Amino acid sequence: MREGVSGTGRGAGPRRSQEIFEATLDLLAAQGYEGLTVEGVAERSGVNKTTLYRWWPSKGALVSAALTGAGRLGLRVPDTGTLRGDLEAIVRQVVDLLTAPPTSAVAVAALGAVTHSPDLARSVRGFFADRLAREREVFERAVARGELPPDADPVLLIDLLAGAVWLRVVLRQQPVEPDFVPRAVDTVLRGAATR
Amino acid sequence: MREGVSGTGRGAGPRRSQEIFEATLDLLAAQGYEGLTVEGVAERSGVNKTTLYRWWPSKGALVSAALTGAGRLGLRVPDTGTLRGDLEAIVRQVVDLLTAPPTSAVAVAALGAVTHSPDLARSVRGFFADRLAREREVFERAVARGELPPDADPVLLIDLLAGAVWLRVVLRQQPVEPDFVPRAVDTVLRGAATR
Repeated sequence: MREGVSGTGRGAGPRRSQEIFEATLDLLAAQGYEGLTVEGVAERSGVNKTTLYRWWPSKGALVSAALTGAGRLGLRVPDTGTLRGDLEAIVRQVVDLLTAPPTSAVAVAALGAVTHSPDLARSVRGFFADRLAREREVFERAVARGELPPDADPVLLIDLLAGAVWLRVVLRQQPVEPDFVPRAVDTVLRGAATR
Repeated sequence: MREGVSGTGRGAGPRRSQEIFEATLDLLAAQGYEGLTVEGVAERSGVNKTTLYRWWPSKGALVSAALTGAGRLGLRVPDTGTLRGDLEAIVRQVVDLLTAPPTSAVAVAALGAVTHSPDLARSVRGFFADRLAREREVFERAVARGELPPDADPVLLIDLLAGAVWLRVVLRQQPVEPDFVPRAVDTVLRGAATR
């Protein structure tokens, strides 16, 4: 018996899915994937373990659902009217995701554990695939407006922009200067437009 | 008393520094930063623990030295005659670093542990700073040849290119298609040149 659908409108889940996802991500950040248990999520969220298992038959399934379904990690797909505006909004969201606690801790914890767990690797892959799928409309609108050639590769453009943020923030551990976002978008847009 | 300098010509170290660095990186990949001990490196490399401590007073200092000094992680600064050729060579080296074992395991292990250890975070920061410093000459030659405007930002260009590889390979866990490197470099070069 289903208990209702999540408030995010993104996939079915028990009524309290956001609390469950929050508890899952908190524990992932605090204890890593190895230390995370469905029992721990049940305790922290106050949702019955049986309910959790009914919706997500394994820890991996629960973490996957949390990574793509949690509001705090979610991508708000922008529609500013220009590709430049949309890309700047997307890149700013990546900067916020990686610099503002508590999401930054979750992002880095998930990343760090990727190689230690094929299960988590699958969840992280799903997280990025979901975002890319949702970002496609930004590029479709840009092609329709004539801002981007039809053969442009949205995945390459996103890899360049989001990758620069990951490298700078997580690996190089450098601050993101105020003009970083417009300069990065400007470089990639010029590169994509002039082929 | 010094025992000689390393074969890489990059900083002083005991005669067998490459074996020591290899042992350090192997243990880092296998056991993570927490599990790594100077004793373990001594045992694996066959170099006396006292010698190790004489050169590197702490585990953090040893890992820092290994990350920047080990031949297998080293950047070979290209000089192909064009910025395009140089950047493609640099990006290919990043792809190799992250896809070919055993370096890929080391890269991801170091990355994953960054947030758990301020000590390792410093080493990883040093690793990237060292690479960026060595890559500068590629951009200086490009400016001298008129391929790049003098106000171009080499760090931004490298963050875009290397970041795209990290995101694609480590996080999204996707293969790098044969045309990825030229297409990425092409996009960034056009973006950088036409300002």
